[in-house]
Amino acid sequence: MRFDRHSPIGVFDSGVGGLTVLKALMERLPLESTVYLGDTARVPYGTKSGEVVTKYSLANADALLEYGVKVLVVACNTASAVALPALREALPIPVVGVIGPGAALAAQTTKSNKLAVIGTPGTIASGAYQQALAAVRGGLEVHAQACPLFVPLAEEGWTEGEVPALVAARYLSGGLLAEGVDTLVLGCTHYPLLAEVIQRVAGPTVTLVDSARAAADHVAEVLAERDLLERDAKTTEHHYLVTDTPARFIEVGARFLGKPIAGAKQIDLKLRG
Amino acid sequence: MRFDRHSPIGVFDSGVGGLTVLKALMERLPLESTVYLGDTARVPYGTKSGEVVTKYSLANADALLEYGVKVLVVACNTASAVALPALREALPIPVVGVIGPGAALAAQTTKSNKLAVIGTPGTIASGAYQQALAAVRGGLEVHAQACPLFVPLAEEGWTEGEVPALVAARYLSGGLLAEGVDTLVLGCTHYPLLAEVIQRVAGPTVTLVDSARAAADHVAEVLAERDLLERDAKTTEHHYLVTDTPARFIEVGARFLGKPIAGAKQIDLKLRG
Repeated sequence: MRFDRHSPIGVFDSGVGGLTVLKALMERLPLESTVYLGDTARVPYGTKSGEVVTKYSLANADALLEYGVKVLVVACNTASAVALPALREALPIPVVGVIGPGAALAAQTTKSNKLAVIGTPGTIASGAYQQALAAVRGGLEVHAQACPLFVPLAEEGWTEGEVPALVAARYLSGGLLAEGVDTLVLGCTHYPLLAEVIQRVAGPTVTLVDSARAAADHVAEVLAERDLLERDAKTTEHHYLVTDTPARFIEVGARFLGKPIAGAKQIDLKLRG
Repeated sequence: MRFDRHSPIGVFDSGVGGLTVLKALMERLPLESTVYLGDTARVPYGTKSGEVVTKYSLANADALLEYGVKVLVVACNTASAVALPALREALPIPVVGVIGPGAALAAQTTKSNKLAVIGTPGTIASGAYQQALAAVRGGLEVHAQACPLFVPLAEEGWTEGEVPALVAARYLSGGLLAEGVDTLVLGCTHYPLLAEVIQRVAGPTVTLVDSARAAADHVAEVLAERDLLERDAKTTEHHYLVTDTPARFIEVGARFLGKPIAGAKQIDLKLRG
């Protein structure tokens, strides 16, 4: 499948969470067309093993390649943590994850050189943010904590009030926000919906870093380097693909995208091997 | 694949939750060997469509048939709600779900004829408990509520204290426990782990009904009718199969089974069509 600068950007995630990344991409690159794939039949990836997440990621990438995408954005932190090497080896197009750009932005943000990262059990156990931060700059002190209940809270729409505040306090107390930590990386696409609650618990001296915006900036750089940026689009189209029936994706997804989703097409993934 | 009374009982679930049903089976039928399959690569089923859950259920059943099981127990409430007709049409062995037996026990339990059912969004939206209760006896008033956060709370091990109490209060207030409701059906295999918290919020006039024990009794009846009950086992074996890597299943599963799990074998499912 050939591609050029009019080709769309491909984005995949395990479900609706990656729509926060798509939203950042639409704001940063408003002329670009996009194809978004949510693997809603297999969501969530965060509690699954690296082996299984890599298999699903390759199948997602294959489905997007059929739409002629010019770059693949791995909007899922868990998949970014474990599947990038396999995706880069298998695909003929550039692959951008959310962790590298998020880590780079976090390292620029901290003044105390003490950071905290929160994410799904899969992302945190992989050590991917910790490694990416160490690769950006030595001498950073990184605390990490898995917060498995944040995803269901965000999807349930319980993003304010007593329950999320208590859950956040339970996760963020106990050493994560140790003395001097001034930067907290939201290492899961769902967490921006809980940003207000998390900010309140973390306190005013801590800056939250959202990997979605950092990833969108990085996609713009990657496309510019290869002269693949759309400059004169006749039309800008946004397509949505899902692997389960679309109703719940359309309903919950609108909260993540910040605007209504007109429709989504259900497809079957072909697993390799 | 032939089977006789020495053949094992096959049980499947989307993950660890069905181990509460396996536990009830082991207590009710201690001579029987079992093969348990947790589809941990695709967990959870509760937020997925009936179409997708049915496809996964058939693949789970096919995998268990290869072990020569003499009866299939669908330990997952969501799969019991949507996939039983397809499973019964496709399989050469009896298929027992958890909803029919749970509804029958609930109808025997209530004195006021006013019941409440809680479960995953998939189970509640299917209306399966509501229909099964209506089929057992007319004139029952049934209230229903989806409680999506209960599953992650149980898996996280947050089964006591302030957070589960607040979450339970939020779900169970607002009409579910309307005047006169005296019976509450735990329509999800995870919920028995939260039974104490739920009982405290529901109050002493409400009796909790656990579908797992009711299903185990029904399996015993089905096997007895067909002269398939194990009476003189030389050995009793319990095998565990999973579709993702076994580590997390073994760790979290022990809490659901109430005893350690020695090991689990990872298999790939073959999806039909």
